[in-house]
Amino acid sequence: MKKKILFINPLHTEVFDEDYTQQLNRYKSPETIVDLVSFKSGQGPIHLEYNCYEAMVIPELLRTVKKAEEDGYDAVIIGCFYDPAIRACREVAEKMVITAPAEAALHIATTLGENFSVIVGRQKWIPEMKENVHKYGFIHKLASFKSIDLGVHDFQKDHEETKNRIRESAIEAIEKDGADVIVLGCTAEFGFFDSLQDELGVPVIDATLSPLKYAEFLVEVKQKFSWTHSKKVGYQSPPKDEVEEFQLF
Amino acid sequence: MKKKILFINPLHTEVFDEDYTQQLNRYKSPETIVDLVSFKSGQGPIHLEYNCYEAMVIPELLRTVKKAEEDGYDAVIIGCFYDPAIRACREVAEKMVITAPAEAALHIATTLGENFSVIVGRQKWIPEMKENVHKYGFIHKLASFKSIDLGVHDFQKDHEETKNRIRESAIEAIEKDGADVIVLGCTAEFGFFDSLQDELGVPVIDATLSPLKYAEFLVEVKQKFSWTHSKKVGYQSPPKDEVEEFQLF
Amino acid sequence: MKKKILFINPLHTEVFDEDYTQQLNRYKSPETIVDLVSFKSGQGPIHLEYNCYEAMVIPELLRTVKKAEEDGYDAVIIGCFYDPAIRACREVAEKMVITAPAEAALHIATTLGENFSVIVGRQKWIPEMKENVHKYGFIHKLASFKSIDLGVHDFQKDHEETKNRIRESAIEAIEKDGADVIVLGCTAEFGFFDSLQDELGVPVIDATLSPLKYAEFLVEVKQKFSWTHSKKVGYQSPPKDEVEEFQLF
Amino acid sequence: MKKKILFINPLHTEVFDEDYTQQLNRYKSPETIVDLVSFKSGQGPIHLEYNCYEAMVIPELLRTVKKAEEDGYDAVIIGCFYDPAIRACREVAEKMVITAPAEAALHIATTLGENFSVIVGRQKWIPEMKENVHKYGFIHKLASFKSIDLGVHDFQKDHEETKNRIRESAIEAIEKDGADVIVLGCTAEFGFFDSLQDELGVPVIDATLSPLKYAEFLVEVKQKFSWTHSKKVGYQSPPKDEVEEFQLF
Amino acid sequence: MKKKILFINPLHTEVFDEDYTQQLNRYKSPETIVDLVSFKSGQGPIHLEYNCYEAMVIPELLRTVKKAEEDGYDAVIIGCFYDPAIRACREVAEKMVITAPAEAALHIATTLGENFSVIVGRQKWIPEMKENVHKYGFIHKLASFKSIDLGVHDFQKDHEETKNRIRESAIEAIEKDGADVIVLGCTAEFGFFDSLQDELGVPVIDATLSPLKYAEFLVEVKQKFSWTHSKKVGYQSPPKDEVEEFQLF
Amino acid sequence: MKKKILFINPLHTEVFDEDYTQQLNRYKSPETIVDLVSFKSGQGPIHLEYNCYEAMVIPELLRTVKKAEEDGYDAVIIGCFYDPAIRACREVAEKMVITAPAEAALHIATTLGENFSVIVGRQKWIPEMKENVHKYGFIHKLASFKSIDLGVHDFQKDHEETKNRIRESAIEAIEKDGADVIVLGCTAEFGFFDSLQDELGVPVIDATLSPLKYAEFLVEVKQKFSWTHSKKVGYQSPPKDEVEEFQLF
Repeated sequence: MKKKILFINPLHTEVFDEDYTQQLNRYKSPETIVDLVSFKSGQGPIHLEYNCYEAMVIPELLRTVKKAEEDGYDAVIIGCFYDPAIRACREVAEKMVITAPAEAALHIATTLGENFSVIVGRQKWIPEMKENVHKYGFIHKLASFKSIDLGVHDFQKDHEETKNRIRESAIEAIEKDGADVIVLGCTAEFGFFDSLQDELGVPVIDATLSPLKYAEFLVEVKQKFSWTHSKKVGYQSPPKDEVEEFQLF
Repeated sequence: MKKKILFINPLHTEVFDEDYTQQLNRYKSPETIVDLVSFKSGQGPIHLEYNCYEAMVIPELLRTVKKAEEDGYDAVIIGCFYDPAIRACREVAEKMVITAPAEAALHIATTLGENFSVIVGRQKWIPEMKENVHKYGFIHKLASFKSIDLGVHDFQKDHEETKNRIRESAIEAIEKDGADVIVLGCTAEFGFFDSLQDELGVPVIDATLSPLKYAEFLVEVKQKFSWTHSKKVGYQSPPKDEVEEFQLF
Repeated sequence: MKKKILFINPLHTEVFDEDYTQQLNRYKSPETIVDLVSFKSGQGPIHLEYNCYEAMVIPELLRTVKKAEEDGYDAVIIGCFYDPAIRACREVAEKMVITAPAEAALHIATTLGENFSVIVGRQKWIPEMKENVHKYGFIHKLASFKSIDLGVHDFQKDHEETKNRIRESAIEAIEKDGADVIVLGCTAEFGFFDSLQDELGVPVIDATLSPLKYAEFLVEVKQKFSWTHSKKVGYQSPPKDEVEEFQLF
Repeated sequence: MKKKILFINPLHTEVFDEDYTQQLNRYKSPETIVDLVSFKSGQGPIHLEYNCYEAMVIPELLRTVKKAEEDGYDAVIIGCFYDPAIRACREVAEKMVITAPAEAALHIATTLGENFSVIVGRQKWIPEMKENVHKYGFIHKLASFKSIDLGVHDFQKDHEETKNRIRESAIEAIEKDGADVIVLGCTAEFGFFDSLQDELGVPVIDATLSPLKYAEFLVEVKQKFSWTHSKKVGYQSPPKDEVEEFQLF
Repeated sequence: MKKKILFINPLHTEVFDEDYTQQLNRYKSPETIVDLVSFKSGQGPIHLEYNCYEAMVIPELLRTVKKAEEDGYDAVIIGCFYDPAIRACREVAEKMVITAPAEAALHIATTLGENFSVIVGRQKWIPEMKENVHKYGFIHKLASFKSIDLGVHDFQKDHEETKNRIRESAIEAIEKDGADVIVLGCTAEFGFFDSLQDELGVPVIDATLSPLKYAEFLVEVKQKFSWTHSKKVGYQSPPKDEVEEFQLF
Repeated sequence: MKKKILFINPLHTEVFDEDYTQQLNRYKSPETIVDLVSFKSGQGPIHLEYNCYEAMVIPELLRTVKKAEEDGYDAVIIGCFYDPAIRACREVAEKMVITAPAEAALHIATTLGENFSVIVGRQKWIPEMKENVHKYGFIHKLASFKSIDLGVHDFQKDHEETKNRIRESAIEAIEKDGADVIVLGCTAEFGFFDSLQDELGVPVIDATLSPLKYAEFLVEVKQKFSWTHSKKVGYQSPPKDEVEEFQLF
């Protein structure tokens, strides 16, 4: 059964479009159709390292989610490791499933190992991400956050340098902090997981690919069992007429 | 020393403006100047019961915070019990202090009593609010959430009815759940706290007035000791040139 | 890519074999081959309601896991909601992925909703299952456990009666405890999820089918990304020569 | 509206009286009258580094609280970072509000930053203080406790030495432990906060001044809204006749 | 090897002396010598239901602990379920072991069962006791606190009435809250445990006898292995000369 | 009153029998009769470092527990620091009390000190043991786990080397991690506790002797008060006829 998935890169830049598209298509399941959309260049932030940048793109994110549902997608991936507005997106979507990198990567990491460390770009990112670790329930399995002091747009600049920094942090996470799974805490840290996990001997979870597979999985259980986001309490959708009246999405 | 505080009612409606202004001015300290701003009618949601409505007003909220700083305010109150975008607002503000109803009410409630219950309008609100109780650290003092099945715009419709429902829920919270402090979990539940606390014999914390006082307090410690939001990690402000480049706020 | 999955029903009885096989085959993905094995009748417990029964079948479970790996399976499902010996099974398997009903159902439930309740057969089961909820990290999303006072072999005796009891408990879980997802806490509670979720309006997670899909998902991420159980710390496999010397599995 | 506050330095020594008085008066609000009382020299411990010393001064503390209420104070500050007998003091006071340094400093620290470290004199102090961090709800925001190996009466001996030690610990707390707020964990660590926070670039919360402002804040909400310690459960006052019969306070 | 144990009833009344002495001697081990001391009648509180009463007797408690050590006791039991000043007592005692009812009863209860409920006299007692449950680590096994609305001196007035109330609360705790062990949360609730546990079919832990046995156990491990309270950090004793100088104990 | 205790060394080797027997008899109470049983050599694992080895010996463990009850033992000690199958053993035993090293050592450690560290042989052991620390409730008092990189059968090979490694780890635990009690996390780490605790100045809890004393204590409270494992919920024993029918134990 076809699974139509939209990966929303909620940045106002196309620089990652090609790479993401290639990655997603390389690793998707045969029955999956995965599309990618990013936001218009020149009209907003090109990274979301600040929570206030993240906040500014959320309306466009929600409109994109709404449109994705109208366009017949089965799932949306919110392509940022802060998992921005995941509850809001689930409200907006009445039938689609919604997932995001941290949710996907952490569910996988805690199934595959006993303790995980997250390799992030900047220390600034940690408090918000740690809140998400708490929220998802995995704080007791968090070995550490490690910052490699690179911004979102630095990861792909000098691949060797980035890989060296991730490797060094990961080794410290494994040897000192007791991690047995490494999570790459940014969708832009792509292209490193496979060679690194060969070197390190532990799973290295990629933040772009993990939500792809988690989305396929969620669509699968929805298609087979009608298990989808509960509309009873927290993910309840707003009334249609009110949404229209407020001219939202 | 003057304390200039802006209460942002992040709703696209003026219906509460007069009441809020009156409440805030009635209870402010003499050295406080408190202004109120709400968002333009007809251009967005008039309540934030859904997380996706909340998300849609955040850009306007951030712009308003930014402007408040330029206008010389010392503090901003984000006037919704979900405490929307509190981290983003703190990033955007480089000097102002930022607070919000849940933060203020819960810090007060846990100082005044041993266990608190929050009286909310709808069960739908609870998961997001409970996340905030976790985040602020007070889950071990939460006796219960109680829904009285009223929307944001219902609280002020029939005062007797609203008060009856709050009273009934509060009594159950006190007698069955062991609460010794009641928190009103919506800024629009104003006008009830004083008569109810006389009846109930426990503090009833109002969601509009508690952040007013908490804001005055935070401005006071800033003015006296320069204690304000730390810019070292999570509340770090974005670089000015980047903000300009992205045309934000 | 083919996914060979073995569902181990760790009971010394064949009574569920046909039903499980039918269920699994009905809902599996096209590329999945799912086999079922149960333990020899007359040689051990036909249910695992007691932890000591569970303990007695674990050696046979581990031998079956070992053999499954030799037989080329990609994944094993340990077919009991206590998730018996999941760490031991992961040690024994050097390449396969291992999952189990509670792990699978709870990861799904916490992705789909905000609070879940588990409908179990007997109150006796709750402490061990609650330990697992803690272990997996989801205690903060547990609304309640509900016992319907039926043993493992009672669920399929009188379908109407069983469904009535589940329904009644689930409604209480939703209305009083705030659950928005229902988890059926026994693999033998099969056959009820779909009609019940239609009635209840919330996802009802089946304990036999959820690990099927979670296993497919884990095999998928293993096949695509080589993400599998970390062998660095807790799931490290024992040395082969020692295993032989001890004549195990 | 006048706010009469009594700072009780629960030590049997006058050595800090002048400094505390000066500090408190320098930073108080105009409408605040702040008095200081310490216990009689030569009749008990001159520091409370041991929990058993703390215990020995509590009766005198409670008598002083009782008398403060009779003398018309609006608030009492218990001037020790162990927050000694805070529940007992709240019982004894029927109308006054009671606060203490750890409560005040931690509520402020967790509002201003994401993670705090507490700089204490001796490692011996940590277990009791850590219990308080748990009790107040802030353990998830505790970056670390740091001991600078100085006793209560050492902090003011050699200001340079003390400042050097605090600075060194604070830098380690910020750089290694991720703290973005520093809390000085003893009332006798006064005189350091402002120059240190200039150097460190993060708020440094003083243990004498934070409860002054928190007390003013609590009196303010009491005067304006009658929000004060709940007498319903844990802070219930003992019956007057019984107190007399037992010849207490 | 002889074990000399002192049970300190920290109340200024002799009314329980005979009963306690009888209970303790009836159930002690042959090698145990158990003495009882209470505080002078007419000079202080005859119950500790209020935290401020508890605080007032602590100096006398510490003096009694000090003297007990001089008199050659091996252990002291602090005879109140609030476990008053347990850290302070452990500091004061340089060689003796110290225990108290809540510590003893909860360690036993959590070893014997999966979930316990505590039957207390008044709701007022619960917050302080709940703090102790947190402190000792057993909050995840707490089924409930139940108040039977009787004061310390009421339990022995009408045995039938008291027993009826305990029974009723215990049954509710077992049937509704899932408790499988009952803890009597006051030393004055003596004389009920054995008949009640026969009726209820679950262990009923007595608050006077549990610390007797726990004290014997702690003295045993001290005599055999020199395992006693660590003097390294939190239970470090104050310097002798300082104690003398301060004229304490 | 006689206390008949069986120490089950659940390993298929006799190499520790003599040492354990000697240790147990040297330190037992006069009224205790302590026997030791290990499993047949050549028929299974001689250590349980892997969870799958542990799982393989549990049936023999349960049979031994069953037989111990028939043989009139009052208590069984499960002689492995993983506390294998403790719930199952408690179900199987209808009258005996059951304890195990981690349970015993941690209850003692948290009574004697404020923070403990566990010295284990291999990092591999930590995840399972940490789960037990969580389960028993003591995670907030865990300073650290330290691995000394020795297997179960290495501890007794070179006493000096082992002692040196334990000492080094313990010193680090005390000085860096704040531990004030050391727990030896393997029954085969015997013979070191007393000299080490003299050197280190903190209690060093032995994993063989702590459950001996805890077992004596549990038998004592059972003999005196009939307090034993609750049969109401989690430790309920299976029906006799079913056990026979399944040919178990």
